[in-house]
Amino acid sequence: MTSIDLNADLGEGFGRWSLTDDEGLLSVVTSANVACGFHAGDPATMRRVCALAAERGVRIGAQVSYRDLAGFGRRAMDVPADELTAEVAYQIGALDVFARAAGTRVSYVKPHGALYNRVVRDEEQAAAVVAGVRLADASLPVLGLPGSRLLDLAALAGLPAVPEAFADRAYTDQGTLVPRDQDGAVVTDAETVVARSLGLARDGEVASRSGARVAVRARSLCLHGDTPGAVELARRVRDRLRDAGVRVEAFV
Amino acid sequence: MTSIDLNADLGEGFGRWSLTDDEGLLSVVTSANVACGFHAGDPATMRRVCALAAERGVRIGAQVSYRDLAGFGRRAMDVPADELTAEVAYQIGALDVFARAAGTRVSYVKPHGALYNRVVRDEEQAAAVVAGVRLADASLPVLGLPGSRLLDLAALAGLPAVPEAFADRAYTDQGTLVPRDQDGAVVTDAETVVARSLGLARDGEVASRSGARVAVRARSLCLHGDTPGAVELARRVRDRLRDAGVRVEAFV
Amino acid sequence: MTSIDLNADLGEGFGRWSLTDDEGLLSVVTSANVACGFHAGDPATMRRVCALAAERGVRIGAQVSYRDLAGFGRRAMDVPADELTAEVAYQIGALDVFARAAGTRVSYVKPHGALYNRVVRDEEQAAAVVAGVRLADASLPVLGLPGSRLLDLAALAGLPAVPEAFADRAYTDQGTLVPRDQDGAVVTDAETVVARSLGLARDGEVASRSGARVAVRARSLCLHGDTPGAVELARRVRDRLRDAGVRVEAFV
Amino acid sequence: MTSIDLNADLGEGFGRWSLTDDEGLLSVVTSANVACGFHAGDPATMRRVCALAAERGVRIGAQVSYRDLAGFGRRAMDVPADELTAEVAYQIGALDVFARAAGTRVSYVKPHGALYNRVVRDEEQAAAVVAGVRLADASLPVLGLPGSRLLDLAALAGLPAVPEAFADRAYTDQGTLVPRDQDGAVVTDAETVVARSLGLARDGEVASRSGARVAVRARSLCLHGDTPGAVELARRVRDRLRDAGVRVEAFV
Repeated sequence: MTSIDLNADLGEGFGRWSLTDDEGLLSVVTSANVACGFHAGDPATMRRVCALAAERGVRIGAQVSYRDLAGFGRRAMDVPADELTAEVAYQIGALDVFARAAGTRVSYVKPHGALYNRVVRDEEQAAAVVAGVRLADASLPVLGLPGSRLLDLAALAGLPAVPEAFADRAYTDQGTLVPRDQDGAVVTDAETVVARSLGLARDGEVASRSGARVAVRARSLCLHGDTPGAVELARRVRDRLRDAGVRVEAFV
Repeated sequence: MTSIDLNADLGEGFGRWSLTDDEGLLSVVTSANVACGFHAGDPATMRRVCALAAERGVRIGAQVSYRDLAGFGRRAMDVPADELTAEVAYQIGALDVFARAAGTRVSYVKPHGALYNRVVRDEEQAAAVVAGVRLADASLPVLGLPGSRLLDLAALAGLPAVPEAFADRAYTDQGTLVPRDQDGAVVTDAETVVARSLGLARDGEVASRSGARVAVRARSLCLHGDTPGAVELARRVRDRLRDAGVRVEAFV
Repeated sequence: MTSIDLNADLGEGFGRWSLTDDEGLLSVVTSANVACGFHAGDPATMRRVCALAAERGVRIGAQVSYRDLAGFGRRAMDVPADELTAEVAYQIGALDVFARAAGTRVSYVKPHGALYNRVVRDEEQAAAVVAGVRLADASLPVLGLPGSRLLDLAALAGLPAVPEAFADRAYTDQGTLVPRDQDGAVVTDAETVVARSLGLARDGEVASRSGARVAVRARSLCLHGDTPGAVELARRVRDRLRDAGVRVEAFV
Repeated sequence: MTSIDLNADLGEGFGRWSLTDDEGLLSVVTSANVACGFHAGDPATMRRVCALAAERGVRIGAQVSYRDLAGFGRRAMDVPADELTAEVAYQIGALDVFARAAGTRVSYVKPHGALYNRVVRDEEQAAAVVAGVRLADASLPVLGLPGSRLLDLAALAGLPAVPEAFADRAYTDQGTLVPRDQDGAVVTDAETVVARSLGLARDGEVASRSGARVAVRARSLCLHGDTPGAVELARRVRDRLRDAGVRVEAFV
């Protein structure tokens, strides 16, 4: 029987501001990418989300980011490797205190926003992130894009490298993501997203933008949580997967 | 044989800026209060200071602060208890990742600046700090002013409460510190500081401002590291203590 | 014919986060208290809100705050007077660049959150805020609570001191606000808020918590913009005032 | 008679931290690039430096930067154009309040660090900076590298474009700077720096790394202020220029 993990970004408020429907998403996903204070995520929110996640058996991942509250971590930065390594470890440690207080621990690391995109190809930053993860815990899984420098270097360094897929993003015939600035990059029709989720999870394949069936290796599906109807869509994805006999469970 | 700990604030730079002579102080003190990023202390500096401290057998303490880089943590803030608790735990966790990477761990917690002063008498914030420490680790010692609410509440909560004294600060006849805004609050003559250090460490007493001998209970002496000649003075204190048969060693 | 100003806090998002319905409120109020980056308000938002306000003839006020994004400016801070003065002037200057680019200018200053409450009674901080306003422009009106140290010192310093009232807050028999932590401090019934607005604007009085009629001197009514239905309520207040022959217009 | 401006970065501390010898440099230079709070420069420091500069007749320039205190503005960032434009204007406005309070005004704009380097070739960011300057004041000079996209676009937009040279940096045969990561990029011998300053200021030329004489068009020389001996070196440069009959004066 096939199994798949469902992950989503959580705790992406800051102080007075909130963004993600944390309670709603935690009733659906199996892995929570919790913001650690650099692009979002104040300590009290981190604590609350960790407590809720632990209560529901959802895994806690450190969603590490560039230090950029004003840009929500969406502005790529040329951070020197040693600074980036230390910043990644700092965030993991800060989140781990709340995960442990809730009786669990940080179970994986996933870069956020511009850092996520940068380490797909940037060798130096990918290596710096891996070094930061290892500084915190040399056995911590890294969640990211299949074929990315991040996952390749993580695997080389002995860290479990967990590939994820996006049911709401268009794929090229080569199985890579269509860049966001191109037409049709994002799939918005809910039923299509649900169907693609099943294809990715059960069959390991998805229809490319040109209509070809392409293989996409994924142990986790990333669900987006910051749009209206996000929780409802996530729930439909989860139910469809279960109905089709796919076991929805965390990868760790 | 009597023993005393020597502690000092370290790693109080931020990015391009530096303040404390970390290498110099680490060759003298037995406990390093390392800034955790809220009043000072970028992750790369925290990592470097932790590595150096571990190498020299100096204990690493989390110097937790209000979130106030612009004010260096010297501006008291009315932080709600739950926010303060989470902020304290966050800082401890962030530092601990570097302490553990260096083969050791955060061994105690000491509040910085305005927070240090506030928790002498503020019941709510003192309790919030204790709760934050316990969230991170329910056995972590707290370093602070004897008779402060912080130490009293820490002890009640089962945390080791470690009192410290200041050889360069004037004391009242009641054994409390003369407030900084009063004349003669700070002792600047080096030889006097050295002599007072010995009195505090060996005899548990110091001459008050009025000349009376007052008892001051202290397991650690706080040395200041951000003034010219600070390292040289710290070394003289340490040497004098050793010459007088006082063992200089960490309290944990 | 009586006239009254309607003011509300605007632009209180930050980067990815938003809070206030800026467009909606700008269609109702005559004065916009625009966040300047210290508790909320990124530069792009400030620019956009200023452009919209100018377009609609709404006055732009600098909503100055403690430097505290994480606490949304709601945590009182012991900021030394010279720092506070400079921080206030900095925020006014930063906002003024966008007001001028939109063809107008910063027309008044109103402190936000914990600073607003602090300068009701804190002589030193009230004087520091007034000094900051004067540094920026020695003729700039200050909007605040009648009887506050802020307004008194502003008037003494030659700045127009503009008193405001709150239709959704309970008043004591002495005409002061019932503290927020007391029962019944906030009036939530919409029709009551509308009726009290008219009483405050037209008759200069309001029913106190005990039912007595008390005089409240106000040249502006503060409408809250961060609750559901806020814009609709603001519109009802405005319409009722107009229907009753009260001219709704800015105080400058 | 030839004239040249001498500019240096000032006010690059933040709160408790200081970096530049502001008083010393203000006794030598004719233009002060004052940090505006994004990479350095708290409001109280900005106010103090502006007052001193005005007192000594030194022009005040806004040293605008990416928002990056932790990286001192030295980490290039992919800031979207509209955000960068607003951030530049914000910084200019904030500084201008202190310049005006001191009886003068912001007289020019110079980007700092990674932003300075980025706008040499990055068309989009160079245009965004120019737009930000124009938003603040459509007649404000821009100081930068000759041949940079920044100066070219500033000139096209009708802003005075002021080229500067570096006596302590090596030049290629094409008159461009040797990148910092190459050998010999920085000239450290004081006498050589003084001699090159005279060549640049009086003759508009300098010896390239290969020994060729290359023309460098400059209306200002940039002196570095964050190294030991910086003020003394700056004074020697100024004296040599004057002795050789070069008038040292601001470009505006």
